[in-house]
Amino acid sequence: MNRREFGAAVAGGLLSSPFAGSLGRLSGVFGLTAPRVDGARLNRHLTELSRFGANPQGGVTRLAYSDADKQAREYVLGLMRDAKLTPTIDAAGNIIASRPGRDAGRKPILFGSHIDSVPEGGNYDGNVGSMSAIEVAQTLAEQGITTRHPLQVVIWQNEEGGLYGSRAVSGQLTPEELQNVSRSGKTIAEGITFLGGDLQRLASARRAKGDIAGYLELHIEQGGTLERDHIDIGIVEGIVGIKQWEVTVTGFANHAGTTPMDQRHDALLAAARFVEAVNRIVTSVPGRQVGTVGRIQALPGAPNVIPGQVVCTLELRDLDAAKIDTLYAGITAEATRIGRQNGTTFAFRMLHENVPAPSDSRMRGLIAAAARDLSLTSRVMPSGAGHDAQAMATLAPMGMIFVPSVAGISHAPKEFSKPADIVNGANVLLLALLRFDESPRS
Amino acid sequence: MNRREFGAAVAGGLLSSPFAGSLGRLSGVFGLTAPRVDGARLNRHLTELSRFGANPQGGVTRLAYSDADKQAREYVLGLMRDAKLTPTIDAAGNIIASRPGRDAGRKPILFGSHIDSVPEGGNYDGNVGSMSAIEVAQTLAEQGITTRHPLQVVIWQNEEGGLYGSRAVSGQLTPEELQNVSRSGKTIAEGITFLGGDLQRLASARRAKGDIAGYLELHIEQGGTLERDHIDIGIVEGIVGIKQWEVTVTGFANHAGTTPMDQRHDALLAAARFVEAVNRIVTSVPGRQVGTVGRIQALPGAPNVIPGQVVCTLELRDLDAAKIDTLYAGITAEATRIGRQNGTTFAFRMLHENVPAPSDSRMRGLIAAAARDLSLTSRVMPSGAGHDAQAMATLAPMGMIFVPSVAGISHAPKEFSKPADIVNGANVLLLALLRFDESPRS
Repeated sequence: MNRREFGAAVAGGLLSSPFAGSLGRLSGVFGLTAPRVDGARLNRHLTELSRFGANPQGGVTRLAYSDADKQAREYVLGLMRDAKLTPTIDAAGNIIASRPGRDAGRKPILFGSHIDSVPEGGNYDGNVGSMSAIEVAQTLAEQGITTRHPLQVVIWQNEEGGLYGSRAVSGQLTPEELQNVSRSGKTIAEGITFLGGDLQRLASARRAKGDIAGYLELHIEQGGTLERDHIDIGIVEGIVGIKQWEVTVTGFANHAGTTPMDQRHDALLAAARFVEAVNRIVTSVPGRQVGTVGRIQALPGAPNVIPGQVVCTLELRDLDAAKIDTLYAGITAEATRIGRQNGTTFAFRMLHENVPAPSDSRMRGLIAAAARDLSLTSRVMPSGAGHDAQAMATLAPMGMIFVPSVAGISHAPKEFSKPADIVNGANVLLLALLRFDESPRS
Repeated sequence: MNRREFGAAVAGGLLSSPFAGSLGRLSGVFGLTAPRVDGARLNRHLTELSRFGANPQGGVTRLAYSDADKQAREYVLGLMRDAKLTPTIDAAGNIIASRPGRDAGRKPILFGSHIDSVPEGGNYDGNVGSMSAIEVAQTLAEQGITTRHPLQVVIWQNEEGGLYGSRAVSGQLTPEELQNVSRSGKTIAEGITFLGGDLQRLASARRAKGDIAGYLELHIEQGGTLERDHIDIGIVEGIVGIKQWEVTVTGFANHAGTTPMDQRHDALLAAARFVEAVNRIVTSVPGRQVGTVGRIQALPGAPNVIPGQVVCTLELRDLDAAKIDTLYAGITAEATRIGRQNGTTFAFRMLHENVPAPSDSRMRGLIAAAARDLSLTSRVMPSGAGHDAQAMATLAPMGMIFVPSVAGISHAPKEFSKPADIVNGANVLLLALLRFDESPRS
C-alpha cells in the first residue's frame, strides 16, 4: 500500500471511522505514512513573504491593489507552481490554484486565506493560512497522495477592505461596491483589473451553492485567549457579524482666533463627543460586542481653523445581528443629541455589512479529531474578526482553524504567532482536509 | 499748490494739526485734491486675484509655497509695476516693492499684508490688505504725490503657516523652524527657495529696530462684531498671543474585532476626551480666550483597527500671555488624567508662539482721524487673529485697520467683505499713511 492509496484506504473502510479514528493510530497501521507538513519550509515561506510591503518598524503595509500586493502575489504563484498546483486568476482577481482529484465527478474542496494587509499590519494575518494551504498542497504532492475531490488553494483578494474577492465568488458583491475606493487609492474595479481580473467576465467568478464540496481556512486568532489559556488550536464556532459606516459630521469652518467659543459649530468637538458615546453605549450592555472608530479626518484640517466637517468610521461587531442593530440605534440617537448641542449634524452611510456566519458542525468535529490525532488541545470559540470563510459559508460547509496570537496583538507590526503553533495549525489543516475528503457525506 | 505739495503743506503747518484735522476740511482748502483710491479697480484686482487656487465651491486654497501661491505672486508683481513700484524679493521670500520718498535720509514706511491662504480659505483674508496697499501706491503715483518717507509695499510669505516671512524680517525666525514642513508639503527652507528667496543670505532680510519708520496693515476683521454693531472701521488695540502645539496620543494599535473593549489602549478614544477637555477648560473661565483642535489624524487609520496613535493640534489665544499658560497647564494636567484612564500617553510639542502685540497709540490716533476725515464710524478692538503686524510691532510703531467681515466668517469659502467696506478701509489706509508720513515724530 503506497502513500497514494492512504486516503483510499481510509475511505474504503479499512478503518472503523475516519471521524473517530486517530492518525496516531493510523500511523500504527501504515507505519510512518501519516503525512505531516514541512514546518521549517512553511516558516521560511512566511519570512520570505514578509519582505513584500515590509514596514521599517516591522510587519507589513501590503494594501490590496498596491504594488507590494501584486509583487507578493507573484511570489505566491511561484510557490504554487513548486507545489505542483496549477494557478489561475479568476475574473474577480482571486488566485485559484488547482490540484486534480481521483474522482472527476466531485466538487472541489477549497482552502486558503489572503495576503493583503491593513496599513501597518503584521506578518501573520492571512499569511499563515495562505502559506499553510500551499504547504499542505506541496506535502500532498511530495507524499504522492491524491484526494478523492479536486482541491483548490485560494488566495482571496482584498480581504481587509471588506472580503471583496470571496464575496465576488459567493455572489454578495454588488455592482455599486465596485466603485468604492480602497485604501490603495484605487477603486475596487480598478484593483480587480490591476490584479489580472476581468470586470467584463466578473459573473464567471461566481459559484453557486453546491459548486463547492467544502471550505477550510487556517488563521491566527488575532485575540489573546488561546495563548492565555494554553490552548493549541481554536475551532471556530462562527464568525461575528460586522457593520461599518462612514460618519460625516457637518458644522461650520471658521477662524479659530476670531470666533468666540459660544458661537462655534465645531464638527470635531461633536465628533469627539460621538467617539466617546460609541465607547459608552457599546460597553453599557453585557456581552462580547465591540465598537470602534478607527479613522478620522477633520476638514479643512489646519491648526488655526475650526473644523467645519469631520469624516470618521464606525464599526460594530457581534455574533448576534439584532444586537448590532440595537447598538446602532442607540448610537445614532445619541449622535442627533450631540449635534443639537452645538449646531452640527451627523450623517451615516453604510460601508459594508457581514452577517454572522456559523461554521459547519461536521467540520468542527473533523478539526477536533485532527487536533486529537496530533495530541493538540483545542477549544470551540467565536471569531471576533471577519474572514473570507464567512462568504464561503453561504455556499458550502465551512470550517475554520485558529492558532494562538502572542499577547492577542494583530493588525499591528507586533503581531506574532510562534513557528511551532503555525506548524500545528498547518498539520491540523492537512489532516482535517484529508478527513473531510474521505468523509462519506462530503 | 500742486498735488505733489499736498503732504508738505500738511507737514508745514498750513493746517492746524494733521492729527485733529479732517481731509473733508482739507478738500475745502485744496479743492478736490484730497486723494481717494479707485475703489472699482481695487475690487477688480481682488476678483482677479481670487482665480489663483480657486476652490470649486468658492474661496481659494492658496497654500504658501504652492504653485497657486507662486502664480498669484507673479500677478501681484505685475500690479506693482503698474503702480510704478519697484518690486524685489528679499532673501526670506517676501515681496518688497519700493517707492522713493522726498527725504532720502528717512527710514521707509512699510504697509501690506499676505496672499497665502489656509486650505479651503476665502478670498479676503490677506488679499484685501495686499490689494489695497498696491492700490494706495497706485493712487499716490497717479495723483503725483511723493511722501517724505520712502514707502515699501510688502507681501509677506506664509502668514497662515506662522508668520514666517515677517518673523524672518523681525529676527524671530529660528534656524530650526526652517525644517518645519508646511501645508504645501515643502519645508520652510524649500518654500523660501521656491519663492525666489536666498537661504544663504537669509540674514540680509532682517531689519533692526529703527530701520523702519512705521508699519500699517489693513485686514478683514475675521469676526462678526463690526458688522453686527454697524461699525465701518476697526482700530486694532493689540493682537492676541497665540501658542500652537502638536499633540501626540500614543496607545496600542490592535484588531477591532478580537480585542475586547476593556483591553484596549485606544488612542482615539483618549484624543476624543482630550478634544472635549480643551473645550471645557477654555470655557470654564470668563474672558475672550479661545482654544481649538483643528487637525487630527488617527493611525494606522483603518475602520477595523483600533487607533494606536493620534496626532492632533492644540491652539490657545488670548491678549494675556499668562492666561494662555494657565489654560495650557490645566489642559496638560487633564490630558495626563485621561491617558491614565485607558493606558495611553500624551506628548506636547510646541509648533510656534506669537506673543501678544500691542499697536502704537499714535498710529491708533492717526487711523481714528483718517476715519473721521471720511465720516466713517470706528471702534478700538483687539485682534483675535494673528497678523504679520505683530512681528513688525517689535521693530516699529504698528497700526492696523479692520473692515467688517459679513457674519464673521473667515478661513472658509464663505468669507466675504462688502466692496464698499473694502474701499473705506483702503481710503483709511491711504489717509493714515499720509498723516503718519507727515507726523513730526515719524
